Amino acid sequence: MSKKSEVSGGEGISAAKPSRASVGRLSLYLRRLESLLREGTTKVSSSLLGEALGVTDAQVRKDLAYLGNLGHPGIGYAAPELIAAIRRALGIDRDWPTALVGVGNLARALLRYQGFIERGFRFVALFDADPAKIAEAIEGLPVHPLEAMPAVLAETKAELGVLTVPSKAAQSVAEMLVAGGIRGVLNFTPQVLRLPAEISVVSVDLTVQLEHLAFLVQMSREDQ
Amino acid sequence: MSKKSEVSGGEGISAAKPSRASVGRLSLYLRRLESLLREGTTKVSSSLLGEALGVTDAQVRKDLAYLGNLGHPGIGYAAPELIAAIRRALGIDRDWPTALVGVGNLARALLRYQGFIERGFRFVALFDADPAKIAEAIEGLPVHPLEAMPAVLAETKAELGVLTVPSKAAQSVAEMLVAGGIRGVLNFTPQVLRLPAEISVVSVDLTVQLEHLAFLVQMSREDQ
Repeated sequence: MSKKSEVSGGEGISAAKPSRASVGRLSLYLRRLESLLREGTTKVSSSLLGEALGVTDAQVRKDLAYLGNLGHPGIGYAAPELIAAIRRALGIDRDWPTALVGVGNLARALLRYQGFIERGFRFVALFDADPAKIAEAIEGLPVHPLEAMPAVLAETKAELGVLTVPSKAAQSVAEMLVAGGIRGVLNFTPQVLRLPAEISVVSVDLTVQLEHLAFLVQMSREDQ
Repeated sequence: MSKKSEVSGGEGISAAKPSRASVGRLSLYLRRLESLLREGTTKVSSSLLGEALGVTDAQVRKDLAYLGNLGHPGIGYAAPELIAAIRRALGIDRDWPTALVGVGNLARALLRYQGFIERGFRFVALFDADPAKIAEAIEGLPVHPLEAMPAVLAETKAELGVLTVPSKAAQSVAEMLVAGGIRGVLNFTPQVLRLPAEISVVSVDLTVQLEHLAFLVQMSREDQ
């Protein structure tokens, strides 16, 4: 358990900001822990946690060291305690009122995505530029015109915004969300957003994922 | 241009396998280069390329060193040459016949996603377990039952598979795809897939992305 000095970028455990990869792994550990707990496993070792995810023991301990001293030597981690610590670290021990702009197929898929609701991401407002969509209600939520954004965001106190608009609208819509008080944007467009530094942006470019897969398949062929 | 020794994990430029982050950046450079070229810019410096993406010059040069000696000292990179090299490296200088299993909202969004088509990802076969969906045709493609997978995959020569099924079906469907000759799987379910080592898997867990955003927003609050 003497992995403290290895925490990435860290001068100290709690001060260290974990890497993006490390935060991604915390999410995966959380899923694994919840599944183990459902099956009745309450004590978990770093190797058990890493195994199904293809992560080494050492990496698991390093990632979890960020959360504080939770490991019990010779025993491992207590699943419920570790679940609570990860949820706290990820900021999902609370609700996140979320707005979504651009109500197409992807938006519909996201709105019905059970995982978001389970994690406390609560859609509170929908917007679309297309007047034909305004009358609709999707999953019980009305679709508002873009002009209504300031009033609706203020009323619903939305903190996160999901962008599923066409690329060319992404920057202007993101600026409207920020003007309305949104603190973080999940960007599904390939557009690189230029927003104030205090606004967090996570971009999900699905083509990048598919390109990465093509690259891996091609590499594995060349190895043969 | 003496960045060779810094290529991650590398014994030599062309032998070095770039990191996942580096491959992701190649995709982003490609988009930026294509956009610059459309605007008439044919010579590109590493700083111009990195600027809009928030990547340092040094990192850009390091990422591009993997492609060989393409930089011209004092001039920069020739955009068309660099675009071709990145497309070749990513394996998208060719078509990738792709099958998709699980025809819900997310699948519909992916099938209509212009970026996939532009990158050579060509959907050639759709499958679903729901008999009610079999009669449908989506974007001109018929939906086949799972039982038809071996025959349809052989006929269409699909190389990549996209999994947009419920989590509990993910492992068995992935195995069916592999049995049918698929070499890479893009997994949209939260299920961790156990597949033979020669099969490439890229997982896109949308909840992980949203959790990462919540984490960043929470961190930026604590900084204040």
